[in-house]
Amino acid sequence: MPQLALLYGRAWAALFGQLRRPPRAVCIQMVHSRSQVAEAVLTSQQKPHQEKSNFIIKTPKGTRDLSPQQMVVREKILDMVVSCFKRHGAKGLDTPAFELKEMLTEKYGEDSGLIYDLKDQGGELLSLRYDLTVPFARYLAMNKLKKMKRYHVGKVWRRESPTIVQGRYREFCQCDFDIAGQFDPMIPDAECLKIICEILSGLQLGDFLIKVNDRRILDGMFAVCGVPESKFHAICSSIDKLDKISWKDVRHEMVAKKGLAPEVADQIGDYVQCHGGVSLVEQMFQDPRLSQNKQALEGLGDLKLLFEYLTLFGIAEKISFDLSLARGLDYYTGVIYEAVLLQTPAQAEEEPLNVGSVAAGGRYDGLVGMFDPKGHKVPCVGLSIGVERIFSIVEQRMKTFGEKVRTTETQVFVATPQKNFLQERLKLIAELWDAGIKAELLYKNNPKLLTQLHYCENTGIPLVVIIGEQELKEGVIKLRLVASREEVAIKRENLVAEIQKRLSES
Amino acid sequence: MPQLALLYGRAWAALFGQLRRPPRAVCIQMVHSRSQVAEAVLTSQQKPHQEKSNFIIKTPKGTRDLSPQQMVVREKILDMVVSCFKRHGAKGLDTPAFELKEMLTEKYGEDSGLIYDLKDQGGELLSLRYDLTVPFARYLAMNKLKKMKRYHVGKVWRRESPTIVQGRYREFCQCDFDIAGQFDPMIPDAECLKIICEILSGLQLGDFLIKVNDRRILDGMFAVCGVPESKFHAICSSIDKLDKISWKDVRHEMVAKKGLAPEVADQIGDYVQCHGGVSLVEQMFQDPRLSQNKQALEGLGDLKLLFEYLTLFGIAEKISFDLSLARGLDYYTGVIYEAVLLQTPAQAEEEPLNVGSVAAGGRYDGLVGMFDPKGHKVPCVGLSIGVERIFSIVEQRMKTFGEKVRTTETQVFVATPQKNFLQERLKLIAELWDAGIKAELLYKNNPKLLTQLHYCENTGIPLVVIIGEQELKEGVIKLRLVASREEVAIKRENLVAEIQKRLSES
Repeated sequence: MPQLALLYGRAWAALFGQLRRPPRAVCIQMVHSRSQVAEAVLTSQQKPHQEKSNFIIKTPKGTRDLSPQQMVVREKILDMVVSCFKRHGAKGLDTPAFELKEMLTEKYGEDSGLIYDLKDQGGELLSLRYDLTVPFARYLAMNKLKKMKRYHVGKVWRRESPTIVQGRYREFCQCDFDIAGQFDPMIPDAECLKIICEILSGLQLGDFLIKVNDRRILDGMFAVCGVPESKFHAICSSIDKLDKISWKDVRHEMVAKKGLAPEVADQIGDYVQCHGGVSLVEQMFQDPRLSQNKQALEGLGDLKLLFEYLTLFGIAEKISFDLSLARGLDYYTGVIYEAVLLQTPAQAEEEPLNVGSVAAGGRYDGLVGMFDPKGHKVPCVGLSIGVERIFSIVEQRMKTFGEKVRTTETQVFVATPQKNFLQERLKLIAELWDAGIKAELLYKNNPKLLTQLHYCENTGIPLVVIIGEQELKEGVIKLRLVASREEVAIKRENLVAEIQKRLSES
Repeated sequence: MPQLALLYGRAWAALFGQLRRPPRAVCIQMVHSRSQVAEAVLTSQQKPHQEKSNFIIKTPKGTRDLSPQQMVVREKILDMVVSCFKRHGAKGLDTPAFELKEMLTEKYGEDSGLIYDLKDQGGELLSLRYDLTVPFARYLAMNKLKKMKRYHVGKVWRRESPTIVQGRYREFCQCDFDIAGQFDPMIPDAECLKIICEILSGLQLGDFLIKVNDRRILDGMFAVCGVPESKFHAICSSIDKLDKISWKDVRHEMVAKKGLAPEVADQIGDYVQCHGGVSLVEQMFQDPRLSQNKQALEGLGDLKLLFEYLTLFGIAEKISFDLSLARGLDYYTGVIYEAVLLQTPAQAEEEPLNVGSVAAGGRYDGLVGMFDPKGHKVPCVGLSIGVERIFSIVEQRMKTFGEKVRTTETQVFVATPQKNFLQERLKLIAELWDAGIKAELLYKNNPKLLTQLHYCENTGIPLVVIIGEQELKEGVIKLRLVASREEVAIKRENLVAEIQKRLSES
């Protein structure tokens, strides 16, 4: 999508200068930086800052503040993501940070232990939301909505143990897009994959791949390999770990911890090595065992149709049918997907490294029905952009290139070289504010001119308005261009118009 | 500020049509609508929807979902507020939703009981943030920052009892702007009041007034009336209720519940009736008792200077020195303020009603020091915009005028009158998306043309691209303007350019 890249390219270039490609070692540095974050949290916990009070000033474990620099990067990235969601016709929605505890039970499988509960202070039992999908399904059921295309940007909370998953935050931002409703097969699913491609291309994070599978194919595979149906969810959770731990360790978990027969595990092992394009779908149709399973055939049929639509969207080459993709959450019922950034071959030579998932999603046709008193189903498919990882990558990239961002948008600074000119400065700046011009001054009665000009250079303010006795007498104002240090005199009554003209030109 | 109103006016008119003035009964209706919300919550709790599961589908007490309609209004209002904060040179900041429990203790006085605690699931004891001010102070102390001008838009949580304060939400959005640092007196304070004026004028909520007082004047008043120093905070909390309950009830609380001597209460009663402009400041300087109190004199001196700056900013007539203004929170140390919307005389005739505070703030010079191990102080002053009330007023106004807002931004719909044209529609829409055009289609293999056109009319999509066999053969596309129902044929290769031209013109 060359036009799209171009469209984003401008905004991106403004933020990150002209350098668009990450250097070879960016991804590796990123991961280092994440573990440093985790370490920093631990260190700050141990510091003995206990002179005045018996507590240490810190944010809770696994959380962090976002500095103004981080907020600027975040805002630009979220703007891009949301504008893509809006391009696809999504409406905005917001739900409370916490839900009734019972709304979240039996939705997340093995991960349920990671839900934050609120203290029982009398009244209802509450939990912080774990994702934005379950609240969306609750909203649909509660309002009896049969279809909706919505996006939701918000924080979610998970009590991940930093010792297991290093550098993962316990509070993080999710950006979700979902399509609810009964439609002809695979059209909304294909749009979700198109959206992931548009966002990852637009953000210029480098090459990526979207792994696709289907829960019905997984279930079919488990069935033909001889997994007892009661163990499907548990085995699925194990398979989901394949991008983090080796097949050997996953096999061990399935056999030793989950009681699977070793020969059954080995049969699964053969399947989960398979990945490829639409030809692998055709191949699996011919698989002597899988082709005997009704569920697997349904999944394969849908994947074939999906690939047809993805070809029309021009993104088929970004998609890989991958039998090892499982997705941990319980609620998926059909197609599932996960986007990963690819290392360039050069990077791979240096150190093979899993950069991890930057977007994921799938179909969950049963979730809304779990909330409906009569069990009425509303089929849904959606995606979540892993913006926290994207923030980390971009921040690391900026650090590597020594890129700086302005954290304010101030356009004009009101200065004076003279003492006792606060009144004139205040009158003048009010005039600028009232005209919608972004303006600042120093909160001092008698600041030095050099201090005022340094402030502009340090914070990137492009224009300075200088007022003094001489100017007041002559009815003019001096306008200084910070970059060139050029100064021009402007009639006081033309000041606002002149500033607006110069700002619209730049 | 005529220019500013004009600046906002355009965006506002686009959202709310040309009708800018609320009808006479808007404020009263608003309050009715708020208690209806509270009732609705109660009703949904009682509904016996227990056929399948033993729980009722609802959001937690005191919370609500925001529908796409509400999200559009909210986004426009927040955009206006944030653009004002940026106009005054503020940086963005974000902090976690929860803090260590001990960070929030001893900051909120009598309101501390309203803090939500998290369940002890092992590890740290945590509480949901109660406002954005305490986390800001914690951030400054933790990072040893001596100055910062920041804004923060985020949710906060308070366990308000709906039986006491009807219609108040337990989860709500705050928009804060604060200036931290040691500066010459009253310059940042005056800017905070200017910001409140710009925002309230810009939002066109009708006439408003900002009540101003100073904690030192209150303390001085308590001292000269004979309130024991140990009771200052408690009496201050009682005075803070004067905008909700009558003087008689406040007096009763002070005497019966807080053990104040009746004659002391009556002396306070004389003072808290006083309100006026800068002349009242002068008058209080002459007050035989208050003028003997050092703290009160400091406060009055600062208020005098503040009024001088407010006059230069052109907003002095919006400000009222009001000795009954107390502000509930413990951490204020100097000037305090609260903006209220004024009813027009016509409305007042119908039913006198307190519309309530829509913005508030003040100076808190000791809060950062409470977090610093060595007690180093960083003086701060700030404000919070009561956006939830503003949302309610605007929503009510739109309801009254029957105004509708589009909840999507879709510009083009891709339609066909023909069967089996899904492939062409998918190819075409991908081309539009890749060009950055906001586009939708129906997720059906063979939708009826009428259904497709109705969808556009119902959702406000201005353009329809129609493709059929005839068009495909001739290499053209039909472009339909939904409003006029006019149709023009465009060469397929010119389609994107033609759409972009038409969209930029509209």
